[in-house]
Amino acid sequence: MHKINVAVIGATGMVGQRFIQLLQEHPWFELTAVVGSERSAGRTYGEACHWVIDNDMPATVRDLPVLHSEAALDTPLVFSALPSSVAGPLEERLAAAGHVVCSNASSHRNDPDVPLLIPEVNPEHLGLIEIQRKRRGWSGAIITNPNCTITPLTMALHPLHQAFGVTKVLIVSMQAVSGAGYPGVSAYDALDNVIPLIKGEEPKVESEPLKMLGTLNGSEIQPANCIISAHCNRVPTLEGHLECISIALEHQADLEQVVTVLRTFRGLPQELGLPSAPAQPVLVRDEPDRPQPRRDRAAGDGLATVVGRVRPCPILAYKFVALAHNTIRGAAGGSLLNAELMRAQGII
Amino acid sequence: MHKINVAVIGATGMVGQRFIQLLQEHPWFELTAVVGSERSAGRTYGEACHWVIDNDMPATVRDLPVLHSEAALDTPLVFSALPSSVAGPLEERLAAAGHVVCSNASSHRNDPDVPLLIPEVNPEHLGLIEIQRKRRGWSGAIITNPNCTITPLTMALHPLHQAFGVTKVLIVSMQAVSGAGYPGVSAYDALDNVIPLIKGEEPKVESEPLKMLGTLNGSEIQPANCIISAHCNRVPTLEGHLECISIALEHQADLEQVVTVLRTFRGLPQELGLPSAPAQPVLVRDEPDRPQPRRDRAAGDGLATVVGRVRPCPILAYKFVALAHNTIRGAAGGSLLNAELMRAQGII
Amino acid sequence: MHKINVAVIGATGMVGQRFIQLLQEHPWFELTAVVGSERSAGRTYGEACHWVIDNDMPATVRDLPVLHSEAALDTPLVFSALPSSVAGPLEERLAAAGHVVCSNASSHRNDPDVPLLIPEVNPEHLGLIEIQRKRRGWSGAIITNPNCTITPLTMALHPLHQAFGVTKVLIVSMQAVSGAGYPGVSAYDALDNVIPLIKGEEPKVESEPLKMLGTLNGSEIQPANCIISAHCNRVPTLEGHLECISIALEHQADLEQVVTVLRTFRGLPQELGLPSAPAQPVLVRDEPDRPQPRRDRAAGDGLATVVGRVRPCPILAYKFVALAHNTIRGAAGGSLLNAELMRAQGII
Amino acid sequence: MHKINVAVIGATGMVGQRFIQLLQEHPWFELTAVVGSERSAGRTYGEACHWVIDNDMPATVRDLPVLHSEAALDTPLVFSALPSSVAGPLEERLAAAGHVVCSNASSHRNDPDVPLLIPEVNPEHLGLIEIQRKRRGWSGAIITNPNCTITPLTMALHPLHQAFGVTKVLIVSMQAVSGAGYPGVSAYDALDNVIPLIKGEEPKVESEPLKMLGTLNGSEIQPANCIISAHCNRVPTLEGHLECISIALEHQADLEQVVTVLRTFRGLPQELGLPSAPAQPVLVRDEPDRPQPRRDRAAGDGLATVVGRVRPCPILAYKFVALAHNTIRGAAGGSLLNAELMRAQGII
Repeated sequence: MHKINVAVIGATGMVGQRFIQLLQEHPWFELTAVVGSERSAGRTYGEACHWVIDNDMPATVRDLPVLHSEAALDTPLVFSALPSSVAGPLEERLAAAGHVVCSNASSHRNDPDVPLLIPEVNPEHLGLIEIQRKRRGWSGAIITNPNCTITPLTMALHPLHQAFGVTKVLIVSMQAVSGAGYPGVSAYDALDNVIPLIKGEEPKVESEPLKMLGTLNGSEIQPANCIISAHCNRVPTLEGHLECISIALEHQADLEQVVTVLRTFRGLPQELGLPSAPAQPVLVRDEPDRPQPRRDRAAGDGLATVVGRVRPCPILAYKFVALAHNTIRGAAGGSLLNAELMRAQGII
Repeated sequence: MHKINVAVIGATGMVGQRFIQLLQEHPWFELTAVVGSERSAGRTYGEACHWVIDNDMPATVRDLPVLHSEAALDTPLVFSALPSSVAGPLEERLAAAGHVVCSNASSHRNDPDVPLLIPEVNPEHLGLIEIQRKRRGWSGAIITNPNCTITPLTMALHPLHQAFGVTKVLIVSMQAVSGAGYPGVSAYDALDNVIPLIKGEEPKVESEPLKMLGTLNGSEIQPANCIISAHCNRVPTLEGHLECISIALEHQADLEQVVTVLRTFRGLPQELGLPSAPAQPVLVRDEPDRPQPRRDRAAGDGLATVVGRVRPCPILAYKFVALAHNTIRGAAGGSLLNAELMRAQGII
Repeated sequence: MHKINVAVIGATGMVGQRFIQLLQEHPWFELTAVVGSERSAGRTYGEACHWVIDNDMPATVRDLPVLHSEAALDTPLVFSALPSSVAGPLEERLAAAGHVVCSNASSHRNDPDVPLLIPEVNPEHLGLIEIQRKRRGWSGAIITNPNCTITPLTMALHPLHQAFGVTKVLIVSMQAVSGAGYPGVSAYDALDNVIPLIKGEEPKVESEPLKMLGTLNGSEIQPANCIISAHCNRVPTLEGHLECISIALEHQADLEQVVTVLRTFRGLPQELGLPSAPAQPVLVRDEPDRPQPRRDRAAGDGLATVVGRVRPCPILAYKFVALAHNTIRGAAGGSLLNAELMRAQGII
Repeated sequence: MHKINVAVIGATGMVGQRFIQLLQEHPWFELTAVVGSERSAGRTYGEACHWVIDNDMPATVRDLPVLHSEAALDTPLVFSALPSSVAGPLEERLAAAGHVVCSNASSHRNDPDVPLLIPEVNPEHLGLIEIQRKRRGWSGAIITNPNCTITPLTMALHPLHQAFGVTKVLIVSMQAVSGAGYPGVSAYDALDNVIPLIKGEEPKVESEPLKMLGTLNGSEIQPANCIISAHCNRVPTLEGHLECISIALEHQADLEQVVTVLRTFRGLPQELGLPSAPAQPVLVRDEPDRPQPRRDRAAGDGLATVVGRVRPCPILAYKFVALAHNTIRGAAGGSLLNAELMRAQGII
């Protein structure tokens, strides 16, 4: 299989940097173009980007010219790491011009004809692409991945929902500062502190999973019949969103069944052997004090969801802790896995 | 009113240091004795204590000799900051010898004849002292205050329970490292991390509030008819336990009523004007991102419970955030307020 | 003495907030005007300011209208917490209009006719005001305080320089994130990290103390004959700049003499009993592990310089650690003390 | 080359864990025995060890029985991660019994017949082994690596010393909490703080490099003729000791020469291609704000020393920043590289 050329837009931000890091020596995709803001355009990526994530900037991207957002791209596939405030129209223009856009922005996540995709959870939602193209007259397409907080939540809920039906979810998140991008959270707010609010986050957490856990009926998604209550907090960690989750189930299940369903879950990416797919999408740890953000966020190269402390909840049915790396699984890595699935299915 | 002499046992630990700090220039109590471990006994407090909390060790305590735990004390009132592993028998011996022991240890909290007391919540539970003395043949008594996580929870629940009946409580805590004492949590565990377990904490959180919200019927406490589900986490903050709480109510209430009940709540300590009583036991903040541990833990000199983000919960009825200073209100300060109440009521 | 009306310009930033906090119930000064950026002007201070420092915004300032920087002020005294990028011309305009401007900005610190002032160190440099007024034709004046890193350094050097002559200074600083203002340092840079660079800081540290330790000869300052080498780091602390300092002396001194000179040092503010003057400008601690930023920054209400670990340096003569609160002594508090000195001397 | 069996003593501590991690799939050494404290002996390593470092405990070590320190070992090579308080006699007993002991403990570092070794710096000091064996009548030997703070310092000094002669060194360190082992530093001391003292550290930093930079004359080391002044601080970072270093040189050198000497330095491990040798022992970064502990400690798989900000020092000659991973290069990895050198030279 020849490699497909790809572009990253919003390439100099924190999620953009993760895209570039994950695309380095990717077996299927070749990064050939980077798009940046007005301020960056015209310079090389090495000049324009203040590289902040771990490990050095890949040497191969250093000399790529940063293109202007209006520039024509010649890559069939485009990854979007744009802020949601500007992503919408630009992504549409690219889709109209024939590009498949895998977007990490929230702009189109709730569009009824745009897949909000986690490959292990709802690969069949890619069926929306045909509807999207028909309705919008596009030769390209827009596919989105969920918010970083929602990915581990939905990844843990999905196998349980399939097996037992999840009817209620109460989630309290402890989110890393990288979730706010760079420079993002002020150190003066973060040190020795917790901020019990992440603007705009809770409504997303209470709705996005319902779309993903829903079913594609003909031309539209029937959302899952489930209620979610979310409280989102910012804690002084660098990466890895930790979530305390309580759930109610439609069908009774004992603790062992719940753990087994989580532990044995495998999805389509595992079946297809997608390059970025973790061997196990959900890792259940038995130690009573895990998962921990720092010690578990790298599991499955940052693409696994780590679950622990599964136990009965005296109010709903069960409670547990879930964790995933927010800028890998919850952003660039999730988007990349979406593209890999589409490539494997011949959509790209 | 002449000052009463008091002793602090377990005086060199973190909670012991808070007791000593809060007793400095106290209008009713005079610290005249400190009791320490075998290792400390015989030295002066200044020599034996590695003072770790904010502000310097009070000069007046520096030269006090640290007494051995077997030493006879001549103070009517004793504050116990002992680890629960050793508190039990020693506190009993002191109560038998005629001392009123205000204990921060968990050893006797669940004894049916020992008050577990928050003065704003259940002052009438002091009625147990008579029963305790009769049953045990003591001239002294043991009175306990709840665990540091439970204090802000119960303080916020109490007025709501009185007004509307609280039937279910789901709480996720984010607790400061000082809650584990000193040296307590390893910096290598705490930095850039959250530990989703505090050993032995959740069962306490799920039961202690029920005793305090319960009613004294004749000679025993009838616990409140309420179910609590707790998940306790350690986060990298110094002081101030932050709690995300969802509640169900027996009687319907609208949001404004809930907020008003919290905001207007006053207890007996406020009525009596106890020296350590905060003007408002529950402070409701309107900013969407408060309370925060670092910015709000000092409210009411560390004795207020700060509540914020009161809003509907789509699963239970309402959700909100609560915070209190864990080594002041949740430990030494809470215990001191208990003693002040007993003094005001002539028990001491 | 009647109170003098004062204004704070740059009032909504972190240093502006400290000014407002320190001016609350000040015995000599009455805050009557606040000046902010274009974005803030026209709103009340309570609306315009995102208050981030400890303790709540003083109630008295909440309803003050934020004035535009072009607005005419009717206060004899103006405190400037402006960013240095914009402070220069505005401060000049105010001085020309008859205001005494106590500025925390760096714009005019190196002007030969502008005092760079620490009241304990070089009060006689206020003599420059007459020269400044003559030269510039102003009825007002500009007086500056040094950079936050330089204050504890110079405070410790001054008594030693007077006694023994300091000829060489090698300083490595570990500076708190608040030194960069708000939002300032990104939490993603600060957590689990040290940044070994603070832009533009080292040249200031290597030159500003020389002016302050210098002597006013007629109309100009003769800088001290001393060489300083600085290395400035940003560490993950909130407040309090810690500095490891090695010094060479012109005249030999034994360790005890060095410690005694530091410990017994008193300056003009102490002599005059200025309201903000700490009882001891330099506190020498004997514990081997002090000063520490968190535990010592509040010494003298944030206006003391705390010194510890004074010991021989095998390369220069002595080494020690010094600390001061960077946004109090190193910024707003230092500037306020300058104003108090001028008030006491009848300049205001 | 067949693999050599090795044991790790002090295997459950933080440095012991690093040894085990680095020995996983090592091409020359096979971990076959782990030795622990009285408390651990008799259990499997998986049971006895609270694994705290990044990445999971290697599966291969999980079922190894933890041996008692008195147990006879059948491995020619033993790595010692013992606390210095107990290392001395045990290491001697092992050397007498024929084992080559590569020790991270400080007990024998200053013994005149024990090599204190950094393979890139003083490989010729292995000549001491013959003298050690003769003098002590051992068939085995003890070889030590320096303290974690000293490794990056000496690594940076060595090429400069060879080229220009280093006569004076003033170093201020900012050391990570892992340097104190586990549990080590209390989180209550570390958060929002710097501790300006590391007990016993400064004398080591002021002497150990002189032995390593010294020359083996016949049967003894002639220490380098250089004076070091050290100030050691604990900062809230996890791993990576950062050091601000100023040096004076015997022979004049311009800035470019200094940088070139550092950048082009290669040692014997690089020449021999030892398995753990980083390609470049000293990496010079050109960015003005590097090295940073979090972003640079993994350079060369944790075995490189990263240097930055090389510039003139107005007091000595040059100043710069150096960093190395303290539990890899500064402890287990350094010791392992020592063993690799000895294996390559046929000593093991």
